[in-house]
Amino acid sequence: MPLLVVGSVALDDVETPAETRENLLGGSAVYFSYAASYFTPVRLVGVVGEDWPAEHTRFLQSRQIDTRGLQVIQGAKTFHWRGKYFADMNQRQTVDVQLNVMNQFDPVLPDDFRRCKYLFLANGSTDLQLKVLGQCPGASLTVADTMDLWIRTQPDLLADLLRRIDGLVLNDGEAKLLAKDENLVRAGNTIRQMGPRFVVIKKGEHGAMFFSKHETYVLPAYPTAKVVDPTGAGDSFAGGMMGYLAEQGDFEPKTLKEAMAYGILAASFTVEDFSLDRLKKIERADLERRMEEYRKMLSF
Amino acid sequence: MPLLVVGSVALDDVETPAETRENLLGGSAVYFSYAASYFTPVRLVGVVGEDWPAEHTRFLQSRQIDTRGLQVIQGAKTFHWRGKYFADMNQRQTVDVQLNVMNQFDPVLPDDFRRCKYLFLANGSTDLQLKVLGQCPGASLTVADTMDLWIRTQPDLLADLLRRIDGLVLNDGEAKLLAKDENLVRAGNTIRQMGPRFVVIKKGEHGAMFFSKHETYVLPAYPTAKVVDPTGAGDSFAGGMMGYLAEQGDFEPKTLKEAMAYGILAASFTVEDFSLDRLKKIERADLERRMEEYRKMLSF
Repeated sequence: MPLLVVGSVALDDVETPAETRENLLGGSAVYFSYAASYFTPVRLVGVVGEDWPAEHTRFLQSRQIDTRGLQVIQGAKTFHWRGKYFADMNQRQTVDVQLNVMNQFDPVLPDDFRRCKYLFLANGSTDLQLKVLGQCPGASLTVADTMDLWIRTQPDLLADLLRRIDGLVLNDGEAKLLAKDENLVRAGNTIRQMGPRFVVIKKGEHGAMFFSKHETYVLPAYPTAKVVDPTGAGDSFAGGMMGYLAEQGDFEPKTLKEAMAYGILAASFTVEDFSLDRLKKIERADLERRMEEYRKMLSF
Repeated sequence: MPLLVVGSVALDDVETPAETRENLLGGSAVYFSYAASYFTPVRLVGVVGEDWPAEHTRFLQSRQIDTRGLQVIQGAKTFHWRGKYFADMNQRQTVDVQLNVMNQFDPVLPDDFRRCKYLFLANGSTDLQLKVLGQCPGASLTVADTMDLWIRTQPDLLADLLRRIDGLVLNDGEAKLLAKDENLVRAGNTIRQMGPRFVVIKKGEHGAMFFSKHETYVLPAYPTAKVVDPTGAGDSFAGGMMGYLAEQGDFEPKTLKEAMAYGILAASFTVEDFSLDRLKKIERADLERRMEEYRKMLSF
């Protein structure tokens, strides 16, 4: 089943202790789309400026990513993010954000996009997420990401969104903020009671937690000795997860847990190089091989 | 098989955001012994002062913990630790340490203790750990804990110890310090190459990692909504792990992984109340019930 994602498309500058790279292909919808494309056709909705290299669009199209929803706005520049990682790669600082075309982003979905059954609202302002949601009344699985900025500035809109989506994906710090609780197990359940049928808390190098009415569990990250650039790991996680769900066409507890695992493995590849440089070198078979190791690791 | 542990026996003051408790039964050897006692008879070696309540000794004896190695030094006071936890219970600050009798601790093991096949050197100065190791030449499995203080102040002795033990258990920050590497996967393997056949890195609420020549894996913590006091979680982990190994009488990869899981579950109970208040309310059957849930959580 095709999967629709709406989110940021960016050019990133990334500083790591080992190396600095500039103008990298990035953005939540980009990482999400690419990770999801191992499993299912993806329809990407986003906006870029006139500085956007056409080769990036062709690169996305070379996978099963439909870019008809990628608006190019002349006379404006692409969203630009600059971040810095410290020796402990879990610590990140945003050095600079140039919203540029994101200020004008008002997605109007093509008709066939509106009929997508699987919808992911990548990190973006809550009002924008609600606008997209309103255009897809027939979606059978809607999952959203959010962040501290929207939790603080659009709490009422977020409360509305939470009542209307099936799943929420957010990181540990954001979950604590939203639930006003430092204990992640309680926080996850509190957020679930705000509306979504399931909540996923991403814990970076420590894996991810899942909460539904009947289940609470945590799966560890795949241990990788090579962490080059963690940018996009969370979006790759969501892409792997949603891509697998769309491929399977159901969201039974068993499928959801497998989807969590695929998300974790997609993220484990993303961090092994800058931008999509590692992901673009792997095939579905590489994900399956790592899945076999991962299952073995967790069985005893 | 009986299991010998040498380590601290303490009276703790613990400040948490919800409550402060003073003069609690604590210490690495105490938490370790109690957690191990679900699996195997334990022989505890430690030292206390004249202020030590005899009821604590009787309490330990009420389980299968042999306290003949617990010296009581008259005219001196028991090791006293005061710690403070913040809203994020993973953040701890040592407020005060009174070494007291620990300054005079020079363990001389009873003859039958020296013949123990399973030995755990709980956190303590490396020279003291080496002294104990020298008294147990026939041990078939020796595992040690260490901490930043000894990594910084006794590096040569620690290098010697690492060449002579089978396993090392330490927390994530200590592993990074010892290996001089911020990536835990690389750090674990680096430390393993310093001598021990296996290394376990404890990650607090995020579980534990295991490293041997042929295996690297990570197991998550059991998700608990009730974290009252994390003190002793790491020592309970080691106690559960070593207790199970001693009970099984082997250290095959399969047994080691099961032991890791029992350690994680012992710790998950410890944090649910102050001191040993939660552990003392459970039976082996409670550990087995949680093990069943834990296995289910990790299988998909």
